[in-house]
Amino acid sequence: MDTKVWQERMAQATLWVREAGARIRKSMENPLHVETKSNANDLVTNMDKETEQFFVSRIQSHYPEHYILGEEGFGDQLETIEGTVWIIDPIDGTMNFVHQKRHFTISLGVYHDGVGMFGLVYDVMADDLYAAFNGEGATLNNAPLMGVNDADLHTAIVGLNANWLTTNEHMPADALHFLVQKARGVRSYGSAALEIVYVAAGFLDAYATMRLSPWDYAGGLIIAKEAGAVGTTLQGEPLNLLHKQSVLIATPKVHKEIVERLHGASS
Amino acid sequence: MDTKVWQERMAQATLWVREAGARIRKSMENPLHVETKSNANDLVTNMDKETEQFFVSRIQSHYPEHYILGEEGFGDQLETIEGTVWIIDPIDGTMNFVHQKRHFTISLGVYHDGVGMFGLVYDVMADDLYAAFNGEGATLNNAPLMGVNDADLHTAIVGLNANWLTTNEHMPADALHFLVQKARGVRSYGSAALEIVYVAAGFLDAYATMRLSPWDYAGGLIIAKEAGAVGTTLQGEPLNLLHKQSVLIATPKVHKEIVERLHGASS
Repeated sequence: MDTKVWQERMAQATLWVREAGARIRKSMENPLHVETKSNANDLVTNMDKETEQFFVSRIQSHYPEHYILGEEGFGDQLETIEGTVWIIDPIDGTMNFVHQKRHFTISLGVYHDGVGMFGLVYDVMADDLYAAFNGEGATLNNAPLMGVNDADLHTAIVGLNANWLTTNEHMPADALHFLVQKARGVRSYGSAALEIVYVAAGFLDAYATMRLSPWDYAGGLIIAKEAGAVGTTLQGEPLNLLHKQSVLIATPKVHKEIVERLHGASS
Repeated sequence: MDTKVWQERMAQATLWVREAGARIRKSMENPLHVETKSNANDLVTNMDKETEQFFVSRIQSHYPEHYILGEEGFGDQLETIEGTVWIIDPIDGTMNFVHQKRHFTISLGVYHDGVGMFGLVYDVMADDLYAAFNGEGATLNNAPLMGVNDADLHTAIVGLNANWLTTNEHMPADALHFLVQKARGVRSYGSAALEIVYVAAGFLDAYATMRLSPWDYAGGLIIAKEAGAVGTTLQGEPLNLLHKQSVLIATPKVHKEIVERLHGASS
């Protein structure tokens, strides 16, 4: 498969992402239908579903041989990452979308046999498009991102949800407290995809979470890697695009410092 | 003192805030000089100082009989809040300013004998101006803010710095964990003034902190109150504009729920 074909696919996908964003902005004139999923704080709206369907219908019509993995389930049930897979979160940060009408993103990552070919994360209300094509670096609104800083943890700003600092079902409440104590600052924006591209842009030096679905990070991971960041589980293992798991996306030094610290804590 | 005089002062102050913001944006073409203050993560830059001096020189020249309380110390040493006091944070969220070049604010609150007359909080890079005049409601970019939602804590989004969830010198590490467990979501943006006006705008339902200086909240408090929020210490006591203290700015129901819970915990 030559580069030009992938570049055309990325150009096509970029148009779809921008059109989907415009539809979401336009939808704000109308009432929103909000439901809950796995728990009372796991929100989904008609616009999450309509936006995923928008992508699925276009991808299926243009690329019938490709697979689709989407948060709302309108794509395929995949047991392998082989072939070309479009991994989509139609609205990442649905709680922000419902409560704030800002700070949410459309996230799209396209993988071929498990290799990230291009990623797009669109901050819909800010009209900020973060993008990357395999091997060609990352951009924000078409301007190259200059590569991540490589600060130490003590001068780093870390994206981290407060849930992982209190009693939770995945790790001891205090397991990540060292991050808060050692880092220069901690932020939480409520959209994993946004926080991951913030690492790419240098606004954050790390994003850490105990539990994330592939569609939350598939697009951002490609962009962050192209900007020079490293992405693994919190234990430093490769990410698996078919399962929920912990995710750590960080600049190289900060990544190393966090993984070593967590490894020391658990051994 | 009639209303018209105060409205003219607010109009004048608005021009100064916008001019100061434009100067900060312009300054990003030049190198930034960063120093530390009380600790290695307490940053101050030449632009914090220059921006405060910009305000102090204009206020002293136009209103020589007024007092000024500013973060960087170019104003007055006050032992009383009597008279007219301009309370200024030239750059709230200096860490964001240094690391992100966004997500910082200029905050200005003007008080007369302790009563908030008008408040301005300017998100410099988003070009979003939050404003309120005593008794006349709050606005965002001149559009009225429609009044806060009055959600319960379990459907609330709370602004809270992760430092207050781990070992700290002001309260037990777990004293605020109930907020994370009970609230729908927790966010942290790194600018107190921004998070306080986010309550006014309905993006957050509460902002809670163990320790805040008057210049961090003086402007936002007026705006949040005009939008229908309540501002006190975490114990529910009135805020004192001359001292550092805990601060809770929240919609009425959420405010009541948090104060009652903290009172129950400490009694």
